[in-house]
Amino acid sequence: MNVSSGETETAAGQPEGATSSLARLLIDRDEAERLAAVLKAIADPTRLQLLRLIERAPAGEACVADLTDCLGLRQPTVSHHLKVMTEAGLLTRERRGTWVWYAVDRGGLHRVRDILDRAA
Amino acid sequence: MNVSSGETETAAGQPEGATSSLARLLIDRDEAERLAAVLKAIADPTRLQLLRLIERAPAGEACVADLTDCLGLRQPTVSHHLKVMTEAGLLTRERRGTWVWYAVDRGGLHRVRDILDRAA
Repeated sequence: MNVSSGETETAAGQPEGATSSLARLLIDRDEAERLAAVLKAIADPTRLQLLRLIERAPAGEACVADLTDCLGLRQPTVSHHLKVMTEAGLLTRERRGTWVWYAVDRGGLHRVRDILDRAA
Repeated sequence: MNVSSGETETAAGQPEGATSSLARLLIDRDEAERLAAVLKAIADPTRLQLLRLIERAPAGEACVADLTDCLGLRQPTVSHHLKVMTEAGLLTRERRGTWVWYAVDRGGLHRVRDILDRAA
């Protein structure tokens, strides 16, 4: 049996027209790649920890030094995670004087929820 | 400047007590790893496409042959993606006769949304 041939399998007993109906529901590849990139940016335990820390910090913002202490990680590691999440639209970043403050981008999190609603 | 030392940075000008307050908000590492594993299982463009196809298929279920045809991928590739999502609790899997049918596990998707609510 040629299991790599979906067409053969379909011909062997699938409801006629099922495949063509499904094809019309296919999410666009470019859109799927954009959505996957945002999900990848939070599919990491340290980033999930950072998101919660920042969200629940006083005034909803924190700087790298606070986060470094909490997680017991080196500053360059924390900065890298923050950069990835900022670029993915999950965090905002603002320099005030010596410090750079990070806050959760509500719009970014809503977009992730939308991804889930649209994907399924 | 020793940028890897959060303590030194904190002593240089952070609000007193900010770090210890943040530490109490830290999400447990084991929980963060479980949540990240589920997010990783859908942080992939092909899996997002598969999720939508299955969700919107007739009767909300599809078998590998249908999905293989739609995506133009080989059956082993599709089967691998389905296996990862099934193990992550995002899909259910049921054999009926010759065919194995996959459906979206609503509970699994709700858990992902909960992850986002808890993480941020």
